[in-house]
Amino acid sequence: MKVELISCGTELLLGDIINTNAAYLANELANIGVNIYKQTTVGDNPERLKRALELAFEAADTVIITGGLGPTDDDLTRNVAAEFMGMPLEFQESVWQEIVDYLMGKNPNYQLADNNRKQAMVPQGAIILHNPIGTAPGLILDKDERRIILMPGPPREMKRMYHEQVEPYLKSKSHQVFASRYVRFFGIGESLLETKIKDILDQQTNPTMALYAKTAEVLLRVTASGQNEAECLSLIETALQPIKERVGEYIYLVGTSEVSETQTEIHRVLARTLIDKQLTISVAESLTGGDVASLLIEQSGVSQVFKEGIVCYSNESKINTVGVKESTLKQFGAVSREVAREMVMGVVQRLNADVAIATTGLAGPESDESGKPVGLVYVGTYYNGQIEVKEYHFFGDRALIRDRAAKNALNQLRLMINRVKDK
Amino acid sequence: MKVELISCGTELLLGDIINTNAAYLANELANIGVNIYKQTTVGDNPERLKRALELAFEAADTVIITGGLGPTDDDLTRNVAAEFMGMPLEFQESVWQEIVDYLMGKNPNYQLADNNRKQAMVPQGAIILHNPIGTAPGLILDKDERRIILMPGPPREMKRMYHEQVEPYLKSKSHQVFASRYVRFFGIGESLLETKIKDILDQQTNPTMALYAKTAEVLLRVTASGQNEAECLSLIETALQPIKERVGEYIYLVGTSEVSETQTEIHRVLARTLIDKQLTISVAESLTGGDVASLLIEQSGVSQVFKEGIVCYSNESKINTVGVKESTLKQFGAVSREVAREMVMGVVQRLNADVAIATTGLAGPESDESGKPVGLVYVGTYYNGQIEVKEYHFFGDRALIRDRAAKNALNQLRLMINRVKDK
Repeated sequence: MKVELISCGTELLLGDIINTNAAYLANELANIGVNIYKQTTVGDNPERLKRALELAFEAADTVIITGGLGPTDDDLTRNVAAEFMGMPLEFQESVWQEIVDYLMGKNPNYQLADNNRKQAMVPQGAIILHNPIGTAPGLILDKDERRIILMPGPPREMKRMYHEQVEPYLKSKSHQVFASRYVRFFGIGESLLETKIKDILDQQTNPTMALYAKTAEVLLRVTASGQNEAECLSLIETALQPIKERVGEYIYLVGTSEVSETQTEIHRVLARTLIDKQLTISVAESLTGGDVASLLIEQSGVSQVFKEGIVCYSNESKINTVGVKESTLKQFGAVSREVAREMVMGVVQRLNADVAIATTGLAGPESDESGKPVGLVYVGTYYNGQIEVKEYHFFGDRALIRDRAAKNALNQLRLMINRVKDK
Repeated sequence: MKVELISCGTELLLGDIINTNAAYLANELANIGVNIYKQTTVGDNPERLKRALELAFEAADTVIITGGLGPTDDDLTRNVAAEFMGMPLEFQESVWQEIVDYLMGKNPNYQLADNNRKQAMVPQGAIILHNPIGTAPGLILDKDERRIILMPGPPREMKRMYHEQVEPYLKSKSHQVFASRYVRFFGIGESLLETKIKDILDQQTNPTMALYAKTAEVLLRVTASGQNEAECLSLIETALQPIKERVGEYIYLVGTSEVSETQTEIHRVLARTLIDKQLTISVAESLTGGDVASLLIEQSGVSQVFKEGIVCYSNESKINTVGVKESTLKQFGAVSREVAREMVMGVVQRLNADVAIATTGLAGPESDESGKPVGLVYVGTYYNGQIEVKEYHFFGDRALIRDRAAKNALNQLRLMINRVKDK
């Protein structure tokens, strides 16, 4: 099956909303082994939509259109698709009844308008896709080896319809099974990683592999096809073996496909480790200013282990609350290995935590009175009676330096916990 | 000028990343009076990119391509565009020097690879767009009344390049002048705001107006066209007058166009107010877990006034560090008006701050042992000897509830400072 995607809506063309539907569908389709070769976005204009359909069928046999199914005048996908396929529209009583039930259920005093009836017009012979959470039903127009699948634009409605009705339909047309794994690397850049495993990536046909750079980390996507899931996973495991041998030290997670797969996950991995091992944590943050704490607290259940965070952005707070010595601040400056060490020690002692993180650095845009370079960061971590302080040099603007500092701090503690054996 | 947009990248086609660039560019172009009629997304495949270019030039005279300028083998936009325009690639020493400087500046031990040199290949006669925050320079290929503009895919690099180099270029090709203002509302929902000012919005043709809902706030975009900027601004001011009369109490900022225009700005407004008035601040955060501190610290210069943040996610920290009474926690529970009051008082006293914020609430996914509803949040604020505690009920998932709580906390203090007169 060759699929193209058309997103319909003037609000997309004006940039008033971001097209999350395209990414969602592309991802879901890739997961069942359907690759999309092109995505197009057009406005609410019948001529342009028709032209987009013609061009899509140049290469594809199946076109998925989202948007343009609403009741207002500028919603015209249904009409264009019906005409394109030569399947004339007819009013369908059962669809109308569903729409009435939905609108009256939402608001018993709803005044039905003429344009609501438009949504009950169905191309002759089309498969109707029910929409339990909106008025616009979806449609599948299947004729002469060509298919147009219409779904509503609101992501909530589209996702549910795809999941419950369109995906089973597409799967019924295919015999292959697909499975993916997402390998997450921290501490190695995309270029260097590619250089190290390029020969492996190039050799692969099943599974296929692709690298993606994220802030402070890299993602490797591995997708296999086979007769069943077990076969796919076995192919993936075999293919990952030589990669683990070469660059395994940078891998922190091999995850399954999830909606959150594109997010940076280092903080969740650490938070889950702390919860699993019941290690209590305290943090002291200067330049990261609460980001380390906030990232950890994103993970629900972390309340079992998160003792306290101190945002000691001022020297006063570093001295009074965290217990950094005034003389250390004077001698070495706030951004120093020595201050990071005293911060991590101080925050451990306050509430007697098992592990701790401390950050101090220069996020910019300007340096402080010390004249040290913007991007210089010291991270102190504590675990099992030991302190580790590392120096980092980050590039980018204020937000990026803070983000990189927070994520590297989390990774530093993760590595320390992995390395230091429990006594 | 008729512009089409091509987004290039297999990761977009696979849905591994969401195409925010298309929305950003569409929005920015609309701002200077350029409407886009079609957006296309293609993978890293030269044939398909070439075909997309041909089709785009069916209707457009200018095509903007983002992505595919990197050093790896699958990045091929530069080559396809050069061939399409008949402008052969040549190695350009000055571009190479910029790339080397950038990479060496990032990491003095960087091992230059052959594929880095690819990024210094420039189509003969093309305008080079400098990239101070990445290796891939952008390009403008202008020939025979057709233009291709190439920019890197990473949004941070693309946005800066667009703002600093592409927008001025596009403006120089047009005789109309456009100006926009961004009116930011906090504390009123999009639907209610629209109802209140719909008649005004509908009447407008110059300036045009559009409403956008953001997390916890609403943005009204007002764009005027005229002979010069002064004329545009005067049109905007006149049009805003009746809106200010009706809903002025919810407006917290009338801003100019900036890279950050789509971001929520309530935290910067408060941080700048604190710096201007030299009001020192301390915060105590439970459910927001560092987000209030982090948002304030996003604003550079805030070190003058930010005393300390305590992330007292545990009761132990609330008692020992912030000074909440154990009896209050027992009697009312951690998520209560009384605890919010003691938290804000406690954090003010620690380092004697002028103003303070405290947050406590249930971010979910589950409630605590109290059985209070997820989304219940208490925010305490302190200014000029007075304490205010407000109860909120937020909806959404854990991340959204925390985000709304943090922003509403900042707004609560902002309103309190505006309201309470200095004695």
